[in-house]
Amino acid sequence: MSASWEQTYAQRTQRMSSSAIREILKLTDQPDVISFAGGLPSPEVFPVQDFAEACQRVLSEKGAQSLQYSVTEGYVPLRETVVHITERQGLTLTPENVLITAGSQQALDLLGKILIDPGDRILVESPTYLGALQAWAPYGAEYITVPTDHNGMITDALEDALRQKPKLIYLIPNFQNPMGVTLTLERRQQIVALAERYNVPIIEDDPYGQLRYEGEHIPSVLILDGQPRPQTPIYDGNVIYLSTFSKILAPGLRLAWVIAPVSVIRKLVQAKQGADLHTPTFNQMVAYEVSRGGFLDRHIHLIRRLYREHRDLMLAALDSHFPPGVEWTHPAGGLFLWATLPAHIDSARVLQAAVEQKVAFVPGAPFHPNGGGQNTMRLNFSNASPENIRNGIFRLGKVLTEQIRAS
Amino acid sequence: MSASWEQTYAQRTQRMSSSAIREILKLTDQPDVISFAGGLPSPEVFPVQDFAEACQRVLSEKGAQSLQYSVTEGYVPLRETVVHITERQGLTLTPENVLITAGSQQALDLLGKILIDPGDRILVESPTYLGALQAWAPYGAEYITVPTDHNGMITDALEDALRQKPKLIYLIPNFQNPMGVTLTLERRQQIVALAERYNVPIIEDDPYGQLRYEGEHIPSVLILDGQPRPQTPIYDGNVIYLSTFSKILAPGLRLAWVIAPVSVIRKLVQAKQGADLHTPTFNQMVAYEVSRGGFLDRHIHLIRRLYREHRDLMLAALDSHFPPGVEWTHPAGGLFLWATLPAHIDSARVLQAAVEQKVAFVPGAPFHPNGGGQNTMRLNFSNASPENIRNGIFRLGKVLTEQIRAS
Repeated sequence: MSASWEQTYAQRTQRMSSSAIREILKLTDQPDVISFAGGLPSPEVFPVQDFAEACQRVLSEKGAQSLQYSVTEGYVPLRETVVHITERQGLTLTPENVLITAGSQQALDLLGKILIDPGDRILVESPTYLGALQAWAPYGAEYITVPTDHNGMITDALEDALRQKPKLIYLIPNFQNPMGVTLTLERRQQIVALAERYNVPIIEDDPYGQLRYEGEHIPSVLILDGQPRPQTPIYDGNVIYLSTFSKILAPGLRLAWVIAPVSVIRKLVQAKQGADLHTPTFNQMVAYEVSRGGFLDRHIHLIRRLYREHRDLMLAALDSHFPPGVEWTHPAGGLFLWATLPAHIDSARVLQAAVEQKVAFVPGAPFHPNGGGQNTMRLNFSNASPENIRNGIFRLGKVLTEQIRAS
Repeated sequence: MSASWEQTYAQRTQRMSSSAIREILKLTDQPDVISFAGGLPSPEVFPVQDFAEACQRVLSEKGAQSLQYSVTEGYVPLRETVVHITERQGLTLTPENVLITAGSQQALDLLGKILIDPGDRILVESPTYLGALQAWAPYGAEYITVPTDHNGMITDALEDALRQKPKLIYLIPNFQNPMGVTLTLERRQQIVALAERYNVPIIEDDPYGQLRYEGEHIPSVLILDGQPRPQTPIYDGNVIYLSTFSKILAPGLRLAWVIAPVSVIRKLVQAKQGADLHTPTFNQMVAYEVSRGGFLDRHIHLIRRLYREHRDLMLAALDSHFPPGVEWTHPAGGLFLWATLPAHIDSARVLQAAVEQKVAFVPGAPFHPNGGGQNTMRLNFSNASPENIRNGIFRLGKVLTEQIRAS
């Protein structure tokens, strides 16, 4: 008789959402499917040769160190790189404000571990990032949703939501995943002020901030929160800021960072120590080596140019092939746009038909923690080639036209 | 007014132990301290040149794949490597029985996430691995301790402990961390039978199993549990087995594996997806590339030879320099030995005096989840050079002699 595993699982795992992202990533594995489903960067922009050279330098100059255990906080030169990036945006930090994590997904998990107790309510945009919902399900998070329009979270609705005493605010201000919309400067300022008044910390998730294709850069919520404070080099404000090397270097390294008050970083370090001891030493040293000498700036310029072309191609294809009654966002950056179908069309059923036509996307419903969004879909434009963008949107337009006609 | 972070933390973080391992790793950073404190492999055995060649091959042949996102379960050829290793030990598996994790520490964290509810009691050896206690503190684990002698967990005491209804048994059968002792074949068989009778799953942590320096290999608890079952290629028994590339290749890559029934692997995959999406693609592909063609066997042979010399040097130095009244284990493998001081000597106070003499170790008390062990210490023999082993044990012997004389 073997142990009855199902009974052995802690009950909380029942609350985990079904593995939506993983199942979707599996779809993209089939080579004949054109996938707008994942959030994958284009492999064209991976600096493979620069990585090869960096690996050689790290292994020949610091081989033993790079393969050994290291401290939980992260490789100091890489944390200093994050300090420099943030300094250029207008906020002074010390490396003690920075933790290197195994992707932003790990930052979300560790934040859940130190901040969320069962039943705690997180204030989120609706729709919001599915990965955050997956990270926080095991901790028993619940959600207060604030509606979102083409300028991000609607702040008029925010104060009412804050009166419901959320534990945290979770925001993706730039080119939001899944909608592709950007929070305006005025709304950012309002949110910073309201969060401070109601004494609710903000988690700002900013994976795409540097991937802007048009318009002016808007200061992050971190910068808006930090700049007016007395300028000591130790940030001690109200924001926990997440960003990542996944979108500006390569996701296969699993490297991201958290900026937060030192007391928060200390708690995260303690949690990370129990979770995986530290982020791989070798990866941190290679990423630092690749990033040196202005490489990141030049490389981000190249990524922006490519993804802007992809976005424009997809927007043009949508204009040509999507039927009347379907609307979509016009993202100023990032990897995604968001389409809204007529209210009675279920995008999960559209996906079934689409996969038969060898094209995939993510249905919008799972991004809504409190339900809704059955008639929405997320489309990624970074990963597919220009030809596949044209062909894929053509196929998807045909499927949509048929589904709407038949409905 | 900034958010009062301390109030915001979930209460459960209060239960986390102080960051003992991390503080210890910091000690080892001072270059003039001879440290027997960490669990670090010797950098001498890192195959730096083989890594350099593997990085080049991976980046030139599969550059885009190695830098991209990948599936949560792990890189299939690396999972197949684990299947082959296990097959040679006498158990047939499929890759679906295998999950690649970011070090065994992550496996412990994910197991806590899917299996442990607050107040659940884990049956452990006393002393046991500190990293497991740190991983499970946030989940509210409690412990039933079973005493350990030079042959591992004392099974006569086990049945009484099982009547207290533990949720899990956690065991390190080979060259246990921290004691360096090895569970006998007879006791392994008894534990497998009792765990089955009481329907309690076993987590077998086996980071050092391949690092044996004398005597015959003893089958793992996994093998003993799996072999008598009907030989299908899908293991569906009572054991969750953890092992790692950290001790046989390099810890700086953060690569380990779990073997378990497919239903357990599925739950772990779901938890890992929320925790960090996947283990770095690049690291998995490089480790697979390095391991191919019999390299692992040759390399493990080399590690064994070096660490056996280190162990023998440390045992000889202990014989020469440690005062009467101190006893220690004679490990047949692994990285650690364990010394027991006279009952009235507190090893934490010995550490203070030792660090002044520029030598460090880990006091034994934190390895005891339910208290005790104040007069014990763990000594690592893998990392220090032969000269430092001699000098460090000489210094530590002097400190001990003085402390015992003064007491």
